[in-house]
Formats: sequence, structure tokens, C-alpha cells
Amino acid sequence: MICYICGSLYRDMAGNTFGNLLKLSTFGESHGVALGGVLDGVPAGIEVDFEAINIDLARRKPGQSRITTQRKEDDEVEFLSGIFEGKTTGTSIGFIIKNKNQRSNDYGDIAKAYRPSHADFTYDQKFGFRDYRGGGRSSARETAVRVVAGAIAKQIIPDIKINAYVSGVGELKLDIPYNKVDFNEVEKNPVRCPDQVMAEKMVSLIEEVKLDGNTVGGVVSCVISGTPIGLGEPVFDRLQAELAKAMFSINAVKGFEYGSGFEGSKMKGSEHNDLFNQNGTTKTNRSGGIQGGISNGEQIYFNVAFKPVATLLQPQETINQNFEMLTLNPKGRHDPCVVPRAVPIVESMAALVIADYYLINKTRKI
Amino acid sequence: MICYICGSLYRDMAGNTFGNLLKLSTFGESHGVALGGVLDGVPAGIEVDFEAINIDLARRKPGQSRITTQRKEDDEVEFLSGIFEGKTTGTSIGFIIKNKNQRSNDYGDIAKAYRPSHADFTYDQKFGFRDYRGGGRSSARETAVRVVAGAIAKQIIPDIKINAYVSGVGELKLDIPYNKVDFNEVEKNPVRCPDQVMAEKMVSLIEEVKLDGNTVGGVVSCVISGTPIGLGEPVFDRLQAELAKAMFSINAVKGFEYGSGFEGSKMKGSEHNDLFNQNGTTKTNRSGGIQGGISNGEQIYFNVAFKPVATLLQPQETINQNFEMLTLNPKGRHDPCVVPRAVPIVESMAALVIADYYLINKTRKI
Amino acid sequence: MICYICGSLYRDMAGNTFGNLLKLSTFGESHGVALGGVLDGVPAGIEVDFEAINIDLARRKPGQSRITTQRKEDDEVEFLSGIFEGKTTGTSIGFIIKNKNQRSNDYGDIAKAYRPSHADFTYDQKFGFRDYRGGGRSSARETAVRVVAGAIAKQIIPDIKINAYVSGVGELKLDIPYNKVDFNEVEKNPVRCPDQVMAEKMVSLIEEVKLDGNTVGGVVSCVISGTPIGLGEPVFDRLQAELAKAMFSINAVKGFEYGSGFEGSKMKGSEHNDLFNQNGTTKTNRSGGIQGGISNGEQIYFNVAFKPVATLLQPQETINQNFEMLTLNPKGRHDPCVVPRAVPIVESMAALVIADYYLINKTRKI
Amino acid sequence: MICYICGSLYRDMAGNTFGNLLKLSTFGESHGVALGGVLDGVPAGIEVDFEAINIDLARRKPGQSRITTQRKEDDEVEFLSGIFEGKTTGTSIGFIIKNKNQRSNDYGDIAKAYRPSHADFTYDQKFGFRDYRGGGRSSARETAVRVVAGAIAKQIIPDIKINAYVSGVGELKLDIPYNKVDFNEVEKNPVRCPDQVMAEKMVSLIEEVKLDGNTVGGVVSCVISGTPIGLGEPVFDRLQAELAKAMFSINAVKGFEYGSGFEGSKMKGSEHNDLFNQNGTTKTNRSGGIQGGISNGEQIYFNVAFKPVATLLQPQETINQNFEMLTLNPKGRHDPCVVPRAVPIVESMAALVIADYYLINKTRKI
Repeated sequence: MICYICGSLYRDMAGNTFGNLLKLSTFGESHGVALGGVLDGVPAGIEVDFEAINIDLARRKPGQSRITTQRKEDDEVEFLSGIFEGKTTGTSIGFIIKNKNQRSNDYGDIAKAYRPSHADFTYDQKFGFRDYRGGGRSSARETAVRVVAGAIAKQIIPDIKINAYVSGVGELKLDIPYNKVDFNEVEKNPVRCPDQVMAEKMVSLIEEVKLDGNTVGGVVSCVISGTPIGLGEPVFDRLQAELAKAMFSINAVKGFEYGSGFEGSKMKGSEHNDLFNQNGTTKTNRSGGIQGGISNGEQIYFNVAFKPVATLLQPQETINQNFEMLTLNPKGRHDPCVVPRAVPIVESMAALVIADYYLINKTRKI
Repeated sequence: MICYICGSLYRDMAGNTFGNLLKLSTFGESHGVALGGVLDGVPAGIEVDFEAINIDLARRKPGQSRITTQRKEDDEVEFLSGIFEGKTTGTSIGFIIKNKNQRSNDYGDIAKAYRPSHADFTYDQKFGFRDYRGGGRSSARETAVRVVAGAIAKQIIPDIKINAYVSGVGELKLDIPYNKVDFNEVEKNPVRCPDQVMAEKMVSLIEEVKLDGNTVGGVVSCVISGTPIGLGEPVFDRLQAELAKAMFSINAVKGFEYGSGFEGSKMKGSEHNDLFNQNGTTKTNRSGGIQGGISNGEQIYFNVAFKPVATLLQPQETINQNFEMLTLNPKGRHDPCVVPRAVPIVESMAALVIADYYLINKTRKI
Repeated sequence: MICYICGSLYRDMAGNTFGNLLKLSTFGESHGVALGGVLDGVPAGIEVDFEAINIDLARRKPGQSRITTQRKEDDEVEFLSGIFEGKTTGTSIGFIIKNKNQRSNDYGDIAKAYRPSHADFTYDQKFGFRDYRGGGRSSARETAVRVVAGAIAKQIIPDIKINAYVSGVGELKLDIPYNKVDFNEVEKNPVRCPDQVMAEKMVSLIEEVKLDGNTVGGVVSCVISGTPIGLGEPVFDRLQAELAKAMFSINAVKGFEYGSGFEGSKMKGSEHNDLFNQNGTTKTNRSGGIQGGISNGEQIYFNVAFKPVATLLQPQETINQNFEMLTLNPKGRHDPCVVPRAVPIVESMAALVIADYYLINKTRKI
Repeated sequence: MICYICGSLYRDMAGNTFGNLLKLSTFGESHGVALGGVLDGVPAGIEVDFEAINIDLARRKPGQSRITTQRKEDDEVEFLSGIFEGKTTGTSIGFIIKNKNQRSNDYGDIAKAYRPSHADFTYDQKFGFRDYRGGGRSSARETAVRVVAGAIAKQIIPDIKINAYVSGVGELKLDIPYNKVDFNEVEKNPVRCPDQVMAEKMVSLIEEVKLDGNTVGGVVSCVISGTPIGLGEPVFDRLQAELAKAMFSINAVKGFEYGSGFEGSKMKGSEHNDLFNQNGTTKTNRSGGIQGGISNGEQIYFNVAFKPVATLLQPQETINQNFEMLTLNPKGRHDPCVVPRAVPIVESMAALVIADYYLINKTRKI
């Protein structure tokens, strides 16, 4: 196809690598042979907890509860290198997740259509060419690879705890502050909200939306505890800058705030400043565990806003690649709300950042 | 000094480089000899508009109006390389801004103190050592270098317009939507709010806060128009991910949202989706000009939340590097609200990202 | 195992990524499940010539002739992503080569021994841990992945021809200058020397060495024709600098010279300078197709020196990881001379560099 | 100017940054205002030895003896940041070297000419535009910046000794092996050859060449002692690969070999292998201190071949940017042999690599 803008034929893409010393390179489309990744920079000698990896994959996978998509994906990871006799060897860890179901006939009607608020139009314009099967590379199925890598990253930094949870679905908002959340409550309901009463309301809202063939957005919050002082590289590679980039690399994310966040912009300095205790900890934590781009040892906490999923079970008018109008009449399954499944993805991207910066910080001493 | 955490002596730092093909490396402390940068990757043959660079520097500099700090900095940039007969040569552009006032005696009382919500504590812990003169490297004076580089970056992409403005100060919030803003109104008042009535209220609030020796936070909004379709590199280097990183690399930033942002997380898919016009543009723009990590040709718009400045003209209790309690009694000048001066900084970081991705996108065709 | 130097337990590794805009990340050990790679940055829309990839793999594989190792490796590549309907999509291309024979029992006797001039000792000291099966990650089996990626890279730059050949085995040296070589002659003999008489001598020498259970080094030369003017990024990323790095990343390489090379250091300026023809080409080409780090359109040519393979079929005294002396009595198969199989590897690394710099150069125009 | 190849107007350049955790970004032309650099990643708390920096600068500067160019450059470095109270702070170190003599009238006759075997032609074709004053960015004057950075890098790794010397000028070749050289002898003669008899012959040869208005090439050798075991990142970032890239980034370099080098390619495995002593050191060192891409604790040694300087004091026919033939009749001063002044440059680039890999290796332990 000819580019709509410049008339040239071919486009390409990079951008599939994340991290510095801990570096993840990924590949794979939703309906290709397999997805996978290369995780480089993992220290040698770590006894890999495969069970922990599988648990995180199960938290992300579709079809795990009635409020997520009923589509079944068997997310089974195969490790190909970098692990020997159960331990990491220090060499790059290659792994794949095979796509069991590669039928593309379900997608026949959208092969040429540009679905509203999807990546179909921009991929086609940028690359002059598109794998139209279920979104191809732009599908969120790609995040399964991040969860594998993130689960390994967590094992590099066992003393640092990274806990995400759902704090908002549509207009519903959890009002427990980050430092009062009992993380043991999170996995007790399908929506992954640590308050069981609020969780029930959220489930009801999602079910209602699902019945309409509609979708709804939400917010995932995350708390990182046990971070040593000193992570983060001023001035451009501040810890919050890399966390923000990591979160905005996830599909459907529209906002990120840490510490006092947008509310903090409304405050006065005298209300906002975190006064020190004599031991160097702070009485309050509006700074969100980071000062001057460097972790100060307090808890790091942040919110990530997700837009509603763009795929609806409702008819929508749209255009196709020939710039003709048509009506999409989708059928089958859809995911009414993505945030419950986004919880392990947020944790994984946070773990990749924190472990990377943890390793970088080790170079800062002679 | 011995590290409080691990007992080791020395620490160091990297992280002073931003960008990929257009790459800015910076240096300089608030009270050192000079600040400066190396901007690499600027195409050859661009006739440099030095006036435009000076205008942006003047918009950032202290002492420009009664609502910013009265401290005087003469931000005069000297170009040392990369420009010949008025045009860029394609080689790296080196430049410096000398610090005219390098007296450090003003800072005697805080040499050993850790100011609350500043970077003093974390720098000292990370590096075991600190340039205590006015924040050293952690001072926002460093952003003058970004403004020079950003002003050049704007000249790489003359058809793309990047306009930032103040949309919030404390509880005051501009309610003109991004696509109704008249950018010609922005520079008509010292607070850089495009609505003159709201601007007056903001000025009053800042003056009131200033009288108390207090500070107040705010929000800078930014609109990018004329972006071609195709900028952004999925999956990790989405355009919004790099913009987010750029904004969070600026001092005092606590939040970033683009398009529908945090409000979008409350919406239903049927409300949020941007339907296409037949020519490939969209009827609405909740996507914020980016879909699947790639610009779609619509306006890109985003909000950046800034916390209130941490330096107060009020006494504050704190600790010093020997972990002794003491009272800070600051005197002199302070900056009651940073957002008016942050406007050109936000524009500059946006320009660096957009110009970099513009160059990267040129590699995507055979 | 405890580190011999510093007493600490664990080590790790990065360094498994090569390239800038065209970026290859690899993984895999000689006796693991599979080797593989992620090739990112390939432009979209290229019709992949799978046959060409298989031909290059066959040129590298063991057991292809009587003068290479008789060990059989079935180097069958499986593509997992990035190719759709026979064309590249612009997304990252993931691929694996399974190890059919993963038995590790052959290597029992060397599990703890450090083979002389191998990587056993340094890996063990660096990582505190080693995959002892046939060299693990340090095995040259890893280069199969480079050949796949290089064969794709060649297809990005179809007008540029990259031809390597053997120009030296032990003391035997081809004396045909680079610009008189008939590349059609190269594949007509198992040693890949373009002169059939010299090739026979080289084969005889290798067979003689093989009978002794010994090995011999050699030189691979490479000629790149059709390079456009302008590839190479001064000052640090000169074209020759990246080519040199690429070649020294290959196992067993001890030397690299381009153009006049080491001989050029003996010459006078008046003998060495390449005078111009009026059309901008040069009368001679001692510059080797590169001036000031940038290709000038003439042929690029260089020599790569390979040491003799360290694995001998002769007894050798050595130490093990407990620093005890022992005698290695290797049996089975070995590779008496690596240069014939190194020819496609040299070409592949050159192709990755040239294609990468070709893409980078596209960003140099506004 | 319109590009000779593709008809487009503008080109640009990147490539002015070297290193990973220790990162040098440079700028500056031979006749611009100043050259300079930003050295990022230097650990905090190092007491800077400014005298050592000046000594290395003096070893590189022109006009230091009768066998180098008589052109005077006052290479005085000014540090602008990153050093406080005599110690590094861990922040980026900015520095400049002003060009005292910026007259460009000496170069009037070559403003449009393309000097043979210089970078004039390729820069003009790549960037469509050229700073013709004395080579501009392509001038070796740029290496002064590397010497400053390298002298600081040496101070990061005080226990590692890096000694370069001249081992060849034209056909004259020093035949003392690397491990018998007395480094105290190197600075006792202007050619920097550690053998005083050979040094005299070299000086005579250079003076003879100079009288003819001619130039001659040479070889710089370098020995690195005291390297800890473990530096180097397989597989692409082997220590020798980064050293090779560093050396080929220096003007006029045509060849690099380490350990047994090109001679090693002629040997048999039984002659070449380095057998172990029981303590893990080796009886011989044909490996050149690196095995499997990782330092093994033995001395690292290598040779770097430099072509003769292209600027002659003899008439040469050439073309100009309009592709007209003309005769260059250069007058004034020239540098008959570059290798004596290249000695500190080779050391500096080696120091940047070793210090960078030293810091990276610190991340390899949990």
C-alpha cells in the first residue's frame, strides 16, 4: 500500500527493547507462531522460582474470571537459555510463549477496517503494511512477555516488594490511602481491589457494562516497599522518569502520577513539604519515595490511568484502508475492563525499572 | 563522608544524556563556572534563529516579573561549535551559559542541612558527597540548558507547533479546552495563562502566597499541532512514553496525562472511542493525537502537574548530615510558583522528543 | 562457587545486543534447548528470501566438508514473528534454532576443567558459575544466530554486495589483491579460497593438521561493493570503528585491518594518498572506501585474523576449578580450521553494520 | 550545496558520544571558538590530579618537539562543572579547550578543494555542507578532548597501568617484546620509542621525510597491566571489541591487533594455546590478557597501525566541490609523523574503555 501522507512504499519499526543494564527485547504478534523475549543482564546464580512466574502469568491471562474476556490463551512459557541446573548463568535468558490458537478467520471482517481508537490506522500509515490478525504486534497479548520478564526481575530484588491493585473502575474510586492497603486482600476478588465491599461494586459495574457490549476504564495503583536509598540517575534518568516511561509503554495508559500527583499541584509548599525525622526518614511522604530523582527509602507509590478498551460489542461506524465508510458489527467475546489483568503488568514493568536501577546503582561506588 | 546505608565511601552518577538520534548531554551546577550542553544529531544546513533561542531563554529566566523569583540570572548562551556561517554543520553543537554570580556564601547555613523535600539528602546518600551551593546539580537552573537545546530542536521541525501554557495554579483551574486556546494570549500576562481573567486571579493567588513566604503548585498544559502521522516506536518507545519520560525528568513534576488522561479512566468505551471521518481524521480526539504509540496526525495535548517549590521563606525544622535537628531560617528571595517559568521548559522537552522521533521515523522507509 | 578474586558469590552478564537502529539481541547456549534472536528495526514490506537465509546457514554449519568438524548440527531456523504473508511487517523478528542434540554427557570430563585458551576460566571467575556443556554461551555455535540476522540484513541493502573469502591458512597466503578476486570462485572449494590452486594447498595443510589432532589459524578477507557515499557517523561511530567492533565480537578474532592496513603504516604520505579522478572517485583505494569515518563510494575491504581453534585432539595439561593440575585427553571430533566456516559469519556481521548505518544515514536529511 | 548522489539538500551527524556507564560526549572544530566535552558517570569523591591531566595534554600538543608540527596550540583545559573542592561530585564533568587562534584565512585556498585522503569530500557529500577551516570537526585537534577525558578515566582505575609507546615508524620496527619494555624509557626521546637507539633512527627518518615535505606512518603499541579478571561483556561487547572500536575511532588508524594478532593466524593450536599455571595465571600470553571476551588478569597488549598523514608540503593534483581539477600548493607547517603524539591518545581511549568496563563489571554481583 502507498502511504497516505508521503506516497512512499515501505516503513519499519524499532523500539522493542526496554532497560539499560537489565534489558528486555521482545517480539511476537497476537496470532503469530509465538511471542517471546530476551532478558539480558540478569545476575548469575539466582535460583529461579518458576512457580512465581506462572502465578504472575495466570494473573494476567484472559479467561481467568467472569469479568474478563472469555477468550482462552494458554500462556505457557518455555525457557530456552540462560538457566542451568535451575540457576541463572548470567547469560541472556531467551523464552517463548506459543500461540496455541492461530486461526485468523475470526478477523476477516476487520482485515481492511480501521477500528476506532485502535492502532490499525497508525500502523498502516507508518509501516505501509499491517498484520491485521487481532491487532498483530499492537495487541496487548504482547504484555505476557513483560510479565515473564518482570517475574524474573522481582527475583533479582527479593527484598523489594512491588504490589499493585485496582483503585478505580469507571467512577468508582477506592478511598483507602496507599499506606493503609492490606495487600493480602487484593487477590481475594476477581477485580483485584483490596477492599471487598468496593470490589463487589466494581464487579457489578463491570458486569453491567459487559451486558451492554460496552467497556469501562480504571486506575491501577502500585506501592513499592523496601527500596534502598539511592536508586535513580539525575538529571534525565530520574527514577520517576523511567517509571513513567515504563507505564506509558503499556497499552491503553493515559495518565501517571506519583506521590502527591495532580493533587499535589493544588497544594502550598508549607502543606506539601515532607519534614524529616531525626533518622532521615520523613514524617509524611508526599514526595512518593523519590526526591531529586533518587529514591529516599520511603515507599514509592503511583497511580496509572487506563482508558476503556476500544473493542466494543456494539456496532460502530468506521473507515477502511481504502477510506470507505462501513459499519463494524463485532461479535464473540470482549474484555469489558482491562484493569484487573493490568495489575501484574504494572508490577512487572515496575520490577524491570527497579531491578535495572538497582544494578546501575552498584556502579556508583569505587 | 561515609554512606549512612552501606558504609562505603564513594558514589557517582550518570543519566545526563537525553534522546536517541537527537541527543542532548548536559552539565553544570547552579553555582559552578558554567552550565552547558552538547546537542548531537542536528541536521546540517539549518539557518539558526538565535533570536528565537534568546526569547525562550528569557521566558525561562528568573526575575522576569514580580511573580517569579527576583534573583537575577543572566542567561546568555555562547555557542562553541557546530554552527558555521550561521548554519548548522551537522556536527555536535557545544554551548555554555556562564554563571555570573558564583558566590556561595549565601548558602553557608544550609551547607550541612538537608532541606525538606529537596534533593540534599538523597544526593548525599547516593554520592557520599554534595555540592551544597544552591542545590548544585539538582537545581532547576540546569533547565536553562534544556531550553537552548529545545529552541534548536524546534527549528528542526518548523512545521510542527509546540505551545505550552499555564492551566492551573493551586486550586485555580483554567476551563478552556485545549483546542479552544488562543496561543497569542499566553504571553500577555506574567503567569502565561491564555485567559486574561483567570490570569489575574492566578497572579493574585501567587502574590498572596509570596507574601506569606509560601509557594504553590500548578499545571502546565501543552498542545502540539502539525505532527505528521507515524511518529512513535512501538512497543516500548511509544511516543507518549518518551513524552512522559521527558516531562518527569523536569524538576518538581508529579503527574502527566495526555488525551483524555485520568478523566478517560472513568469513561465507557462507547463514550471514549474517537470515530473516524472519511479522510482518516477523527471526529473527537480523546486519544490525544496518539494511537498504538504512534501519532495519528491529530493534535497531541497533555497536562503536567508541578508540586509547590520546596524552598519557603518560613522557618522549618529539619536535620543535617550529622542527623542533628535544627531550624532553617531562610531569608532573601524565593520563587513562589514555578509554573510560569516552566512553560518554555515543557515546550523544550517536548520539542526534543518530537524532533528526535521525527528523525527516527525517517529511517522507517527503504 | 566463590569468586577466586573477591570472595563474592554471584556475577552476571549483558552485552547480547548489537546495533543501533537495526538491533540484534541474541541468546542460547551450545547445549541448551535452543539459540535465537530478536532482530528489531527491519523495514516493513521486504519480501523475505528464506532460501538465501538457509544457504548462508549451510555455509556456516559444521559437518559440511571433510576439513571442518564432523559434528552434525541441524541448523534449522524457525521464524516466530515479524513476517506476515511472506513480508516483513516492521515489527521485531523473533527466531530460534533448536539444538537437536542436547546430551551433555560427552562433556563430563571437562565439566570442572579449564581448557587452555578457552573461556572456561574467565566465565567462571566473572560469573561464579558456568554452563560447562560444550562452552555454553561462549561456544561459537552462537554465531548461527548472527548468520540468520545477517542474511536478513543483506536483504535490506540489496544493491550492496558483501563477499568474504579465505585469504590465509597458517603460513599460506593468497596473493590476489582484493579487487582482482572473482567471487564466483569462492564456493567452488571447501576452504572458500577464490584461487583453486591455493585452495588445494590450504585443504592439504588443514588435513595434515587434522591428522595430528592439531588446529591452524587463518585470515578471512571481505569486500563490500556498491556502498553509497555517506555511511558512518563521526567522530566515535566511524564506519571502520563499528566494523572493527563487529569483527572482534566474533570468537577467535585477533586482528582487523582495512584499506592499506598495517602495511599502510610503513608507507609515506606521497605513496599512500588516493588521488581523485574528476568525478570524485579515486585513482587508488588505500583508504579502503572510508575517509574521515564516512564511506566514499569506493570498495570497502578488510582482513580479519583468526587464531587457531583452542580445542585439540592432543593431551594438554591444565587446571580445574579447584586449582588442581590434570591432563585433558580429548577424544571425538574437532574443527581443525575455523576460517572456511567463518566466511559467512564475517559477511553477516558486516551486513548488520552496513544495513544499520544505511538506516542511520537516512536520518541525516531534513 | 546539492548532494552529488541524491540531489537532496541537507545532512547531519551524530556519533559524538563514546562509552556506556562512563560516557564522553564531545564537540568542537579545529578553528571554532572552543572544543570540549561532557564526561558522565565518573564516581564521586575522586581527588582530581589536574597536573596529570596537563601532562597528558602536553604529550599530545603540537609543537612539542622538532619532529612534530610546529603549529602552536595552547591546549589549556577549563573545567566548568562536576568538581567541587577538588573532588568529583558524581555529576557530569563539563570542560572546554579554547581555540586561541581562530583565523581561517590560512585555509582560503582549500576552502573549496577536496584534499586527497582527507575527509573533505565525504563530509561535503554526507552533510551537503562543510566547515572548511582546517578540517573542521574531522581535524585531529578533536582528540585533545579525548586526552582530557582519558586522563580522568585513568584516575578512576589507579591500580591499572596503561602505557603506550611507538613501536614502528615507516619500515623501522622495534623488536623488543611488549613484556620486556621499560616504560620509563618512553618519554626520554621525542618519538616516544622505549629503545633509545631505535628512537634515534626513527627521529632521523622523520626528519628526512619532513625535509621532503612528506609524511610517514607508524605503529603505536599499548600494554595494560593490573587489570582485574572479569572485564568484558560477551558476546557482542567483548573487551577486545570495545578496544578495537575505540582505536578505530582515532583519526588515521588502519589496523588493530591484540595478543598474538595477525601472527597468531599463522600458528598451530599446539603452539598458540596458553597453558595454565596452577594458580590460574598462564605460562604464555598469546591470548593478550583476554579469553572469551573477558580479561583473565594477564597483561593486555595491542598494536595500532596509523597511516601517514595526508597533508603534504608537496604539490598534489585534486578536485574541488565543483568537480574541477586543480593543484594544491600547500605551504607553512605540517606534521611529518603522527605517532609520537598519538601515544597519549591511544592511552586515553584505552583508559575510557577499561574504566567503563570496570564500572559495568561492578553490576555483575548481587
